[in-house]
Amino acid sequence: MPNIQFLNPESLGKPLAAYSNIARVKAGEFLFIAGQVGIDKNGKVAADFETQCAQVFANIGAALVSQGANFANIVAFTSYLVHAQDIPKFAQYRAREFPRLFPGGAYPPNTLLIIDRLVREELLVEVSAIAALYVH
Amino acid sequence: MPNIQFLNPESLGKPLAAYSNIARVKAGEFLFIAGQVGIDKNGKVAADFETQCAQVFANIGAALVSQGANFANIVAFTSYLVHAQDIPKFAQYRAREFPRLFPGGAYPPNTLLIIDRLVREELLVEVSAIAALYVH
Amino acid sequence: MPNIQFLNPESLGKPLAAYSNIARVKAGEFLFIAGQVGIDKNGKVAADFETQCAQVFANIGAALVSQGANFANIVAFTSYLVHAQDIPKFAQYRAREFPRLFPGGAYPPNTLLIIDRLVREELLVEVSAIAALYVH
Repeated sequence: MPNIQFLNPESLGKPLAAYSNIARVKAGEFLFIAGQVGIDKNGKVAADFETQCAQVFANIGAALVSQGANFANIVAFTSYLVHAQDIPKFAQYRAREFPRLFPGGAYPPNTLLIIDRLVREELLVEVSAIAALYVH
Repeated sequence: MPNIQFLNPESLGKPLAAYSNIARVKAGEFLFIAGQVGIDKNGKVAADFETQCAQVFANIGAALVSQGANFANIVAFTSYLVHAQDIPKFAQYRAREFPRLFPGGAYPPNTLLIIDRLVREELLVEVSAIAALYVH
Repeated sequence: MPNIQFLNPESLGKPLAAYSNIARVKAGEFLFIAGQVGIDKNGKVAADFETQCAQVFANIGAALVSQGANFANIVAFTSYLVHAQDIPKFAQYRAREFPRLFPGGAYPPNTLLIIDRLVREELLVEVSAIAALYVH
């Protein structure tokens, strides 16, 4: 396993959702995972925000598993939403699902941005990720 | 050369354009390249979207060459467009030019975002990049 | 100290503000710092753009100090503003404050994006960062 610590020093504000302020990472190998969207392996776009979220994290999970890794290897997320109204839904989704994806109970840093649009108009959420593979 | 693999596991959706879903990277040194825009070394802004794209990738290429590297060292792109109407043009530009920039035929991960504006109003596209320099 | 060089090759356009085009980094350990906003450790949101900037960089500084690091360890910033009108204010803030934060006089790469919104409506600026800890 890579050496990854998630840290929330008291000198910073408390994280506003299911993330940590810092990941400290000693690793010999990294995965850069392109932004994942709510499209499944057959090209089908999930209809609603929550189903898109599930597909996004399923895709990231599949990317990790394909390299012998899992969510414990994630060191940074960047998350993009198209509608500000989906911010609470995204927070709720993570509050509910992340304890299962991250059974250690500590979450990687995330930066959440609300932007104009994603590559296809029906897409509502995209998440890119960096993962660390092992200590060198 | 660094050890870089571009991977598109079948368990994820097929990439929607000229990128890969994952870069797996073992490297001793990294380059972080600030977002490049369509401004040449004399400060001239390229007039149209396509010429700005050419300048953006020329700038990234120049950054790489200055460090003894080339596009084969890129491990992640993040691309920002100001107008959703330019999405097909950006896809076409990459489909046409990337086979020349990446003669190996495999492309680094990219995350494509449509945002409000770049640092100057006439700029239509910006691309930031991370490159890996060699195996440690 | 990690081995970090900030480079501005002449073949690229001159940086448009207080940043470098390239960071070249040999490091054994990285910090990924979640996007920081103008909220202090007690949850109070700073009222205006400039005070939010000060809080953002105070938070990043606190994150660095908590890990025995400082601004000299930063290898990349990504900065998000909500209003294009704040671009000159952000440039001025950095021009004035960065010489103090980065006494070496060389600044890390930055990518500046104008987006729709941040996680809370009153937030005007967010900066995420990657830092490098030491040579392996």
